[in-house]
Amino acid sequence: MALTKPSEVDVLIVGAGPAGLMLSLWLSRLGIVARIVDKRTDKVFSGQADGFQARTLEILDSFGIGERIWKEANRMFEVSFWNPSPDGRIQCNSRAPDNLVGLSRFTEAVLHQGRMEGFFLDAIAASYPHPATPDHQVEVERMVVPTSLSIDEEKVEDDDAYPLSVTLRHLSEAEAMPTQRLSNLSDGLFRSNLTKDDAAYSIENSNGWGDEREEIVKAKYVVGCDGAHSWTRKILGKDFEMHGEMTDFIWGVLDIVPITDFPKLYLLKSTSVRWTAYQIGQRVGDKFSKSDRVFLAGDAVHTHSPKAGQGMNVSMQDAYNLGWKIGLVCKKIMHRKILSTYELERKQIAKELIAFDHKFSRLFSGRPAKDIMDETGVSMEEFSKAFNMSHMFTSGIGVDYKPSALVAKPPERRVIKSHTEVEADQIAVHDQAQSTLCLATNCKPGMRFPSFQVVAQSDARPWQLHHKMPSDGRFRLVVFSGDISKPTRQTLVNGLGAWLSTDVLPRYPRIELCPGSDPHGGTTKFKSSCHPSVIDVLLIHTAKRADIEILRDLHDVYHPFDTKLGWDYGKVLVDEESYHNGHGRAYEGYGVDPGEGALVIVRPDGYTGLVTCVEEEGWKEVGKWFQGVLRSI
Amino acid sequence: MALTKPSEVDVLIVGAGPAGLMLSLWLSRLGIVARIVDKRTDKVFSGQADGFQARTLEILDSFGIGERIWKEANRMFEVSFWNPSPDGRIQCNSRAPDNLVGLSRFTEAVLHQGRMEGFFLDAIAASYPHPATPDHQVEVERMVVPTSLSIDEEKVEDDDAYPLSVTLRHLSEAEAMPTQRLSNLSDGLFRSNLTKDDAAYSIENSNGWGDEREEIVKAKYVVGCDGAHSWTRKILGKDFEMHGEMTDFIWGVLDIVPITDFPKLYLLKSTSVRWTAYQIGQRVGDKFSKSDRVFLAGDAVHTHSPKAGQGMNVSMQDAYNLGWKIGLVCKKIMHRKILSTYELERKQIAKELIAFDHKFSRLFSGRPAKDIMDETGVSMEEFSKAFNMSHMFTSGIGVDYKPSALVAKPPERRVIKSHTEVEADQIAVHDQAQSTLCLATNCKPGMRFPSFQVVAQSDARPWQLHHKMPSDGRFRLVVFSGDISKPTRQTLVNGLGAWLSTDVLPRYPRIELCPGSDPHGGTTKFKSSCHPSVIDVLLIHTAKRADIEILRDLHDVYHPFDTKLGWDYGKVLVDEESYHNGHGRAYEGYGVDPGEGALVIVRPDGYTGLVTCVEEEGWKEVGKWFQGVLRSI
Repeated sequence: MALTKPSEVDVLIVGAGPAGLMLSLWLSRLGIVARIVDKRTDKVFSGQADGFQARTLEILDSFGIGERIWKEANRMFEVSFWNPSPDGRIQCNSRAPDNLVGLSRFTEAVLHQGRMEGFFLDAIAASYPHPATPDHQVEVERMVVPTSLSIDEEKVEDDDAYPLSVTLRHLSEAEAMPTQRLSNLSDGLFRSNLTKDDAAYSIENSNGWGDEREEIVKAKYVVGCDGAHSWTRKILGKDFEMHGEMTDFIWGVLDIVPITDFPKLYLLKSTSVRWTAYQIGQRVGDKFSKSDRVFLAGDAVHTHSPKAGQGMNVSMQDAYNLGWKIGLVCKKIMHRKILSTYELERKQIAKELIAFDHKFSRLFSGRPAKDIMDETGVSMEEFSKAFNMSHMFTSGIGVDYKPSALVAKPPERRVIKSHTEVEADQIAVHDQAQSTLCLATNCKPGMRFPSFQVVAQSDARPWQLHHKMPSDGRFRLVVFSGDISKPTRQTLVNGLGAWLSTDVLPRYPRIELCPGSDPHGGTTKFKSSCHPSVIDVLLIHTAKRADIEILRDLHDVYHPFDTKLGWDYGKVLVDEESYHNGHGRAYEGYGVDPGEGALVIVRPDGYTGLVTCVEEEGWKEVGKWFQGVLRSI
Repeated sequence: MALTKPSEVDVLIVGAGPAGLMLSLWLSRLGIVARIVDKRTDKVFSGQADGFQARTLEILDSFGIGERIWKEANRMFEVSFWNPSPDGRIQCNSRAPDNLVGLSRFTEAVLHQGRMEGFFLDAIAASYPHPATPDHQVEVERMVVPTSLSIDEEKVEDDDAYPLSVTLRHLSEAEAMPTQRLSNLSDGLFRSNLTKDDAAYSIENSNGWGDEREEIVKAKYVVGCDGAHSWTRKILGKDFEMHGEMTDFIWGVLDIVPITDFPKLYLLKSTSVRWTAYQIGQRVGDKFSKSDRVFLAGDAVHTHSPKAGQGMNVSMQDAYNLGWKIGLVCKKIMHRKILSTYELERKQIAKELIAFDHKFSRLFSGRPAKDIMDETGVSMEEFSKAFNMSHMFTSGIGVDYKPSALVAKPPERRVIKSHTEVEADQIAVHDQAQSTLCLATNCKPGMRFPSFQVVAQSDARPWQLHHKMPSDGRFRLVVFSGDISKPTRQTLVNGLGAWLSTDVLPRYPRIELCPGSDPHGGTTKFKSSCHPSVIDVLLIHTAKRADIEILRDLHDVYHPFDTKLGWDYGKVLVDEESYHNGHGRAYEGYGVDPGEGALVIVRPDGYTGLVTCVEEEGWKEVGKWFQGVLRSI
């Protein structure tokens, strides 16, 4: 498909690495007019990053890519710790699971970045034709670099304006090809932070350009996903410089098939070696956005060591956090002020990453202790303890976003006004919703909503609840109703349904879904052309499945009707034993008491926004939460 | 890819429905020079069959298609039985699992045939480039019909001869398009058995042909997968006519999205309806092959009712049974006489299918009994009992092939010489291997080898054992060794290894693997260019994983070495608890006593061939079994 690229776009993305591709994927699914440019001639074919956190796999699975990676990747299950043995050799003296058991249905996995970039391109293409953008398709434009950016500050709060103006230069093949790469294919230094940015070099040293090779693009938003050498960051000026330190440690990274009978290590050979080297430093920018119109994501705002496989993951998760926010603001579904939560949420993660990496890379770079008396060396105990402590962090599951309009923490958290809280208050809505944590003890506002198996009321099929929550731009209201075969419970839940369908859902816009938006068939099978409410209601009950009949017992909101396709029977789920896959014990997993129940709002990125009760007091919190986030129609 | 089609082929397949495509897939994976022709202009887009047995999904999974179907299909978990209620309405008064629990990791699933045919075409293409056929690729040639077939009977036992000669006629688009279809798109009768074969009609009524539209193809084998109107069957003459009966029942089949709130059934509407009708009859051919050179598969040799979703499954399984046999004979890996097992094994299944269908279709077609005194009606109890009894059959897991060189039944089974046994003896090798069933009570010779979870010795990854056994043309020797941390056990297993690597593996050919041959990465990751032994050895032990070190403790045969890629660490598996996926309890599942152990030969199609002991007496049986099947080099 080679449509003419528009010169007015909602979003211009600079850089088609993991962050840029993740952002493009979100925007393609939401039907946003976006362009993505990259200075390189092609995607990565080898080297670079390869480690996938469990959380990253969950995110990719929500777009339908997770299974492809999971199937091809080398999954990590076990870590072995080797120590010197008494006879002067080394021996394995302990083993541990590489991932905390029960944390996620995925474990850490390894697959080279180039392969994943290919999956991203497939998933972006699978979003089309998109009903919202019949004439536009997001495609990576290679060998294109921005050379100027101006911001019309007067228009930054105007929804309909294109306050950003960017000059794009289209490079020739020779200009886009780094010198190092031409001279030595086995050397990946041209992508390392040890060398000068080669694209900048190419442009500075080019023989001048004809006008026909430049174009001006007007944009509502620009996102710099352009790596450690970020052009976008530099053009934003001094305020955007990263702070931190460079160490003297330089790490080498090899792409090889090692032939070794480790532990003896007598043989390490390979037919083709490709290598690069990185100077280890931890730096993070102070500002992640300029006027909430120009954003930075990934290596453009934080750099660190390649160890522990965090870089690519955190970069993708930056973009995953930002994509739906920009998208829903462009669609006028969400208040523009929500964009400020990007910096609030992701700068904190970047800082935690830097702190973690600082500690971790020194452990890895440190000299192993000779014995227990060797105080300057790193002891096996110290190493192994740090390694185990790191699981929540390295899995990506530990992320806990600060309170904001999107994250209703309980009132107790706000008694002591720390620096963090003050910051959070700056963007807090006056009459903000509040969570009641004890109602769903494992659904923590600010953390990712976990997945457990539930069974479909209609056909007994077991589902991972995450598969009912794909990344399609919708918010989910999860109704933990308890036993709805009890009349009082059923009345309560149907009262909630009536309230939702009169006072909540009609207030807010509907959203166009595209072909790829439901990769697991969990929400909208055969319904890619329909425009559902931006709030998707899911009911999980604990009655006996045989005692409930959807149409007889439950309010319409739990089985929406479509004139062409009839009732949607897929929204009512049961926490019961499945025929073939055991019992998901979802209420236990989510920490919900079946006698109490709970209402949980899940954001489009899968993070918990609110936990409250199923009674009328809870409805008020739900109403307030959505008012703080969504624009009424 | 549009390579010139060869006029000398190993195999010519007539018909590109489920049977023809399954056969093509096998032959593409094995690198056989084959052509497949079909009279239609395109694949099926809707209608036709849609039900997938659990066994069919296992088979498709062994080629890497199973997951695609599983993900898209409507999975069947539960059957509800509705009866008249006292108030004159109907009510659901019992529910049952649609599939026996524990039978397979798949359950019955429904997806329309056209979608699956697309997956087949993808999987065939994924087999290339094939090292065995660098200049050839199997591709469906549409609008092509055979018009003559001659057999040079003198050459039928000659391995290198092409004893078959077939004239192929290339149709024009109008000739390939059935009249009915042109006139009425919502009517699928042109594919029904109620109408005359339309392709024959087109040819008879065409205005004559230029010579340039015909070609002569010389073939070693021809397989008629050309449906109920089979041209291939007709040209083979009177001996190949099918026998059985036609009933007066005519069934209608609709392709619709019903809008109904069943059970009330007040509304059944749909925007587009496509329908067809079939006369219900059960017929089966006496002969499935002519001189083991021309074969018939699928509807070409057995027809029955569309109920119970058996037709497409049995057709594909015919071709699945035949494909590797023809392929390995063409490659001179297997004795030609093994081809006679196709009729032996599949005619029996066809007969069972006919008997089952006869009973089952009458139950479905019968009038429901009004009450308990209504003796001519079908009572709910009768129906429900028959339905439950049918599970083993309808899942496809119940298939039990007769004894032959490929299926070593225990000696006891041969005491009473039934008609069946005499037939089996005709193809039995004189000194045939014998099984000892009690050693692996759930690995029954002639039945499919089941799958349980085991854990990889090297990296703790859990595997479904089926994923270590893709359909790549190899036989598997599964060594249930018991606890190899015990010195006597380890010595025994390593003795077996030494014997295999000196007396067995070198006797038999190696086999070229192609890119698609290992869809789950279970056997040959990164090794698509290697040529392993046609016998793949897998070891499953019950020692503690931490007590075993592959290179230190086990004979080379359990960790084959490749000069480019090093040792293969993937052949040694453990029956132990995994970190995240529970305990597979494989020994229990396979019915093997860890104190005894067992050796099991699994055929390339996943059916058990031999069960014997790990001691030297067992080795002899293994040696005999392979001698009876494989050609020595």
